[in-house]
Amino acid sequence: MNFVERLQARIEENQSHLVVGLDPHWSLLPKDIREQTDPDQQAHLLEAFLTGIVEATWSHCAAFKPQIAFFEQLGAIGFRVLDALIQRMRRMDAIIIMDAKRNDIGSTADAYAQTFFGKPNQPACLQSDALTVNGYLGWDGIRPFVQFDIHGLFVLVKTSNPSSGDFQDLELADGRLLCEAVADQVNTWNEATRIGSGYGRIGAVVGATYPEHMTRLRKRMPHSFLLVPGYGAQGGDLAAIRAAFNADGTGALINASRSICFPTDWERKGFKAVAESARLAQQEIQSLRR
Amino acid sequence: MNFVERLQARIEENQSHLVVGLDPHWSLLPKDIREQTDPDQQAHLLEAFLTGIVEATWSHCAAFKPQIAFFEQLGAIGFRVLDALIQRMRRMDAIIIMDAKRNDIGSTADAYAQTFFGKPNQPACLQSDALTVNGYLGWDGIRPFVQFDIHGLFVLVKTSNPSSGDFQDLELADGRLLCEAVADQVNTWNEATRIGSGYGRIGAVVGATYPEHMTRLRKRMPHSFLLVPGYGAQGGDLAAIRAAFNADGTGALINASRSICFPTDWERKGFKAVAESARLAQQEIQSLRR
Repeated sequence: MNFVERLQARIEENQSHLVVGLDPHWSLLPKDIREQTDPDQQAHLLEAFLTGIVEATWSHCAAFKPQIAFFEQLGAIGFRVLDALIQRMRRMDAIIIMDAKRNDIGSTADAYAQTFFGKPNQPACLQSDALTVNGYLGWDGIRPFVQFDIHGLFVLVKTSNPSSGDFQDLELADGRLLCEAVADQVNTWNEATRIGSGYGRIGAVVGATYPEHMTRLRKRMPHSFLLVPGYGAQGGDLAAIRAAFNADGTGALINASRSICFPTDWERKGFKAVAESARLAQQEIQSLRR
Repeated sequence: MNFVERLQARIEENQSHLVVGLDPHWSLLPKDIREQTDPDQQAHLLEAFLTGIVEATWSHCAAFKPQIAFFEQLGAIGFRVLDALIQRMRRMDAIIIMDAKRNDIGSTADAYAQTFFGKPNQPACLQSDALTVNGYLGWDGIRPFVQFDIHGLFVLVKTSNPSSGDFQDLELADGRLLCEAVADQVNTWNEATRIGSGYGRIGAVVGATYPEHMTRLRKRMPHSFLLVPGYGAQGGDLAAIRAAFNADGTGALINASRSICFPTDWERKGFKAVAESARLAQQEIQSLRR
């Protein structure tokens, strides 16, 4: 099964369009992890914490999205923990969308593609089902990933941050905004990856913080899954979440990270609070489908 | 001294505008490294090979630019080798421009900034003097790096690959190309980082493969250093190299990777061939200055 087929099966099975973002912000981690001075013990504790989140939320979500920056920041320990976490998620048959926003050309993009989509017996084993990428370099930077023909991609189209309009909202000579031109290109690239009448393997990142963009971008990429950040902690708009789905209630993945991994009643309830916050997010998202 | 001051001192000292790209393409590495089966021994050999390149080219270049993708591809070994190589270059007081093309928002960009610009006693120690970044996310994705106020940035403006025009050459409603709008924004961001009348800390990546763009982009960012890939193996235009410099012969860094690290007479001459290819590149680049 390719990425889209696996994803659709999991959405159906768990009745969820939620993606749980695994963002181990150092400053938000439980004190016992931050204050541990032995590196091996620290890695062990962090792995146990993240595994706890994965197990608590597994049945409430469609996929997991590790944010590689927070692992990279921890150096060798971070790499070990991410590697172990990936192995663990793969044994559970969880779907892994690596949030790395990679972008490079030719043989360098090949190297990244090998890292994230290569075979598990290769030196780097950050084997993921899908990857976020930045499309500014054009097709050369996308093709090496598409060539791994069971994997998925999410190209940044309209990001959720306050200054995303600096470039993404520039108006082109033909009247489109830049993010609309990127969406059209994603749609073209994606068409070649479609099987039958369904979704293709090239999706797009569109933030929930710009509802007016969501409706227009959804229409421009009818056969792409939209990966939607900004729900929860970033204060994304519920109307934008609704608009991320196609009319038949499919085609969107809604990400929540901090609001699930670091719930307010963690001290009292631990992973039960994590599971509960995932369940509530799952329900709210399902209720927003048109 | 901040990044620009160190860079200018080194350019003056070595009479070189060459940047040596450290791109350990797996398939191009010497056979004894590729065929080594013991991971520790393999890491040791790779570190020795890259250290050999750094030592052979050190006096012919202004800076080194490791491409992180090739290290990441090697997993834990790659991280160890990159870490050791960085420590080595820092002891030599070499200038390190990390080619990672990072792009993210808010706290995630903070995490990347900590990884590359943080203090050496922090967990991840990929401490670099400057970093390549992708600006598609706007100022939010740039600011966390600029806040480390001795470090440098190179924002992707016009990349050297064949399909760089897919988005970068789109015409805007105001008549500019997208890459020109990015250049104007880089120029604005950079102005606030200037000390006196000199260059600021925010530079730009402009490929040597598009000579017609180089002249226009150079003018739009008069106080930014341009980091120019595409010289050597990618067949960049010598006129474009010339146009990357300001009228006073300053402001450009010309990168060569494969043509220096993997010279054709490696088998016969080893690191002497590496040194010789760096010396020839240094001379050619100096001769092209206006």
